[in-house]
Amino acid sequence: MPTQMAREVAEQPDAVRRTLHALIPQRDAIRALAHGRRRVLFAARGSSDNAAIYGRYLLEVHAGVAGGLVSPSIATHYRSRLDLSDAVVVSVSQSGATEEIVATQEWARDCGAATIAVANVADAPLVAAADLALVTQAGPELAVPATKTYLAQLVAMAVLGTALAPDPTALDHDLDRVAGEVARLLETRVGVDAAVAALRDAEYAVVSGRGLLMGTALETALKLEETCLRPVRGYSYADLRHGPISVVASGVTAVLVAAADGPLLAPMVELAGDLTSRGAGIVGIGGDAAFAAACVVHVPGPGLPETLAPMGTMIPAQLIVEGLARELGLDPDNPRGLAKVTSTDPWKEASR
Amino acid sequence: MPTQMAREVAEQPDAVRRTLHALIPQRDAIRALAHGRRRVLFAARGSSDNAAIYGRYLLEVHAGVAGGLVSPSIATHYRSRLDLSDAVVVSVSQSGATEEIVATQEWARDCGAATIAVANVADAPLVAAADLALVTQAGPELAVPATKTYLAQLVAMAVLGTALAPDPTALDHDLDRVAGEVARLLETRVGVDAAVAALRDAEYAVVSGRGLLMGTALETALKLEETCLRPVRGYSYADLRHGPISVVASGVTAVLVAAADGPLLAPMVELAGDLTSRGAGIVGIGGDAAFAAACVVHVPGPGLPETLAPMGTMIPAQLIVEGLARELGLDPDNPRGLAKVTSTDPWKEASR
Repeated sequence: MPTQMAREVAEQPDAVRRTLHALIPQRDAIRALAHGRRRVLFAARGSSDNAAIYGRYLLEVHAGVAGGLVSPSIATHYRSRLDLSDAVVVSVSQSGATEEIVATQEWARDCGAATIAVANVADAPLVAAADLALVTQAGPELAVPATKTYLAQLVAMAVLGTALAPDPTALDHDLDRVAGEVARLLETRVGVDAAVAALRDAEYAVVSGRGLLMGTALETALKLEETCLRPVRGYSYADLRHGPISVVASGVTAVLVAAADGPLLAPMVELAGDLTSRGAGIVGIGGDAAFAAACVVHVPGPGLPETLAPMGTMIPAQLIVEGLARELGLDPDNPRGLAKVTSTDPWKEASR
Repeated sequence: MPTQMAREVAEQPDAVRRTLHALIPQRDAIRALAHGRRRVLFAARGSSDNAAIYGRYLLEVHAGVAGGLVSPSIATHYRSRLDLSDAVVVSVSQSGATEEIVATQEWARDCGAATIAVANVADAPLVAAADLALVTQAGPELAVPATKTYLAQLVAMAVLGTALAPDPTALDHDLDRVAGEVARLLETRVGVDAAVAALRDAEYAVVSGRGLLMGTALETALKLEETCLRPVRGYSYADLRHGPISVVASGVTAVLVAAADGPLLAPMVELAGDLTSRGAGIVGIGGDAAFAAACVVHVPGPGLPETLAPMGTMIPAQLIVEGLARELGLDPDNPRGLAKVTSTDPWKEASR
């Protein structure tokens, strides 16, 4: 019998279609809300933060709009007053009930920001308090590891990033193909078992990616760590190059995620070669033929441009995580020590 | 004979005094340059990025000025045009020669930003091309791990953060005490040997901190990893809470860094208790008596307010790193695989 996580992973083509159908018509409202404002800041934690990192890169790369990330502690603990009257603040939380993010959105509004909530629950507090809500359509998610809600957040980021571009419809042809690519990757599972075997035998694993795919790398590391209960470090490409690459040696498995095109593909191929020369085993997800050739195990990614690739590249990563958890005798649906609605300050909320 | 790293660590009281003396008079010029601009963005990599994280928090917490971090790949690879005409971009590089940061500063200027360079080398390209340069006075650094140049960067961040506050001199009494606190911590070394022993025997180590001390946590993790050649993960407090805490168990040593006051001290004490209940051994740096009581090994921090605490809290962390490297039979001055001037894209620069 498939795990709950596997069932929810399999529901993602529908989650993508439903979410696109619901959110594409909101592009005009997004543009109207952002009119006259100069930057878009994201507030999120955990997996939602990894989705936001994609959102920020897409805005800067595709739409030419400056982005950034809010530090929630500035709102919730330091209670600083900042001038956000030229900003749109996008708060991302699958439950829409993460107290810290709800509080950060309220603070952003008080600081003058226009607010957009991205949540998977229509009647959530985050949605109710926002100027505009992008309600994703992943349906209820029961397994603790966020999969279809994360993918739906990426779809919301894609709608947001295209809405603020000079031509909001420029990527629509490719957006229409995302659900089909997700379904194809779920079906074929090429390389997934070999990747599971490589990670099962690893002494230590690192994950890296760059630019538009950096959020995918961080999310893959987070899921490997929280679902498979192994320490896994997600590095940006640059952070890995600036020091930690010195700990990469034999016995390390490096998972690299890359898009099939774009200016960062060549550096990722080079990184794969460099890590291999240090003795690491490379599991590559996505990329092109040169990237595949530089990896010990290669898992093909989607046939999508770099701007939309994160929505497809996460699929093999999820399949690897789910397979590895089972291989390790763990329950992917309910890893130890995690609650579905996470909280950065449990002690604080418990005392209320 | 002391290692080169130990000698440079010991030079830090003078590095702090000289840098403050050189940069405090530049506050008026910083204010003039930032006049009419609404935000301050940092561009940096590696240790310099960890200094920039402190700079950002200090600006938002103490000065009430919105901050952010630039993604260099947006400049160097995607070559996006963003409107930065309302921004000051602060580029941080100890050598002032990191090609990627030099290129990012040039991009920022082309996008309309006012530019400030923070470097330890007066005739560096980053300095020559900036509208304003804050040249730190750490003197030549020969050991590969950045110590006194990192501390001098923190001093530059403190000058910047106070320069843009409503009253630039409000923290001057405490700033004058930083060099003395650094000297005192270098002298006493309380708890350092016990911390080295705890880390020597650890199967796996994580480092965490929050808010103004988050950069200190990330820098401690980076230095432990690159100098002691062990995988060490630096987590923001929130990232640790949102998932990876599930991998914390017996055999894990968690290094927690905290200030002696401020709104995040109580959460850090709580985190120490929570990690202890999961079986981790806690090495605490800084904090107050309650924080010390929640740790297995406690290393006292500086008697400085949270806003300036990072400049003192890094000292015991450096002593622990240097001692652990020697304990492991490694050369702290020259860890494997690292060059002094780091480069995110060595393949690219080599091909020029």
